[in-house]
Amino acid sequence: MIYQESLEFATSGHGDMRDITEEVALVLSRAAVSVGSVLVHVIGSTGAVGTIEFEPGLCRDLPEQMDRLFPPGRHYAHEQTWHDGNAHSHLQATTLGPSLSVPFSEGRLLLGTWQQIFFLECDTRPHERKVIITVSGS
Amino acid sequence: MIYQESLEFATSGHGDMRDITEEVALVLSRAAVSVGSVLVHVIGSTGAVGTIEFEPGLCRDLPEQMDRLFPPGRHYAHEQTWHDGNAHSHLQATTLGPSLSVPFSEGRLLLGTWQQIFFLECDTRPHERKVIITVSGS
Amino acid sequence: MIYQESLEFATSGHGDMRDITEEVALVLSRAAVSVGSVLVHVIGSTGAVGTIEFEPGLCRDLPEQMDRLFPPGRHYAHEQTWHDGNAHSHLQATTLGPSLSVPFSEGRLLLGTWQQIFFLECDTRPHERKVIITVSGS
Repeated sequence: MIYQESLEFATSGHGDMRDITEEVALVLSRAAVSVGSVLVHVIGSTGAVGTIEFEPGLCRDLPEQMDRLFPPGRHYAHEQTWHDGNAHSHLQATTLGPSLSVPFSEGRLLLGTWQQIFFLECDTRPHERKVIITVSGS
Repeated sequence: MIYQESLEFATSGHGDMRDITEEVALVLSRAAVSVGSVLVHVIGSTGAVGTIEFEPGLCRDLPEQMDRLFPPGRHYAHEQTWHDGNAHSHLQATTLGPSLSVPFSEGRLLLGTWQQIFFLECDTRPHERKVIITVSGS
Repeated sequence: MIYQESLEFATSGHGDMRDITEEVALVLSRAAVSVGSVLVHVIGSTGAVGTIEFEPGLCRDLPEQMDRLFPPGRHYAHEQTWHDGNAHSHLQATTLGPSLSVPFSEGRLLLGTWQQIFFLECDTRPHERKVIITVSGS
């Protein structure tokens, strides 16, 4: 059985992190299946999805450390063509990845108590984001 | 067809790497399906799953290089609140990711000869780990 | 319904990036299903798969930045045993990951206009690569 919904929200720009665990769990409950996996995937190349202990400290640390590894700058080849100042955003999003699969059992996501599903805005400007939630199960 | 099992083991702390390919293959054999994919997912936010050539050199290199990219330290915002000394563990685990999907055909994982499925303990302390193996196939 | 095909191609060595979106879309069309997800997975431990805005700038930036984070060198433990000069290739491939899942709806991949599926050769030498495309849907 496949069940799919999309989740839409606005972000405020670089470093905006959002806990979407509850939204994913609600889609799973509407799918009404017991065991399987959920794929969470963002449309677009400057957003990332993953798991983290969603607390204010790490919500500052993750985007800061991504900016340390891939700092903003004009030295990227992407900038020399496009001049849109977000080459680092692309590199951060590609490294973290646009999607995540989480298993479930008895209709519940198999996550740790301090493990949440996050969306991270890597782009420099605000976006309207669309995340596709696809439940495969029985 | 969905088939799910969990795998439990103890780790010795930061940098403990484990080759779990054989365990995943055994779950796949018990699922008794021919073609599809297996999702391998760790519960918790300081463990990582992926593929690597599982040999002693890379088993030292990967955790060492993760510590170079995200070094232990007191300068993380996570530390200022929690003082548990593992902000770098969270950042390493989130970057490598908690899960991996591997396809299979004729009941066999489609991996290279020098490509194994690893679990990496990123936390500073030992853990009892639970990895969920979910087979989707026909 | 599960449908699987493999895609084979030759690479020219480190930094060779390939846009495989069209090939994945063609496999999806042959699967003749409406909704679900596609798993794209490379066999081997020195290749990576992900999404990116596939334009010439970022196709230079991604491998260059991976070489900055994990530079070639003789200081890795892997080199001390194997002397094949590609420890950094393994670390780059493991960090980016060997696979990607993309959802689809009405038989179309749910990707952004500037979001393509790439394969990146991280190894130092040319390879014959095999990518497995597994469609799960209904």
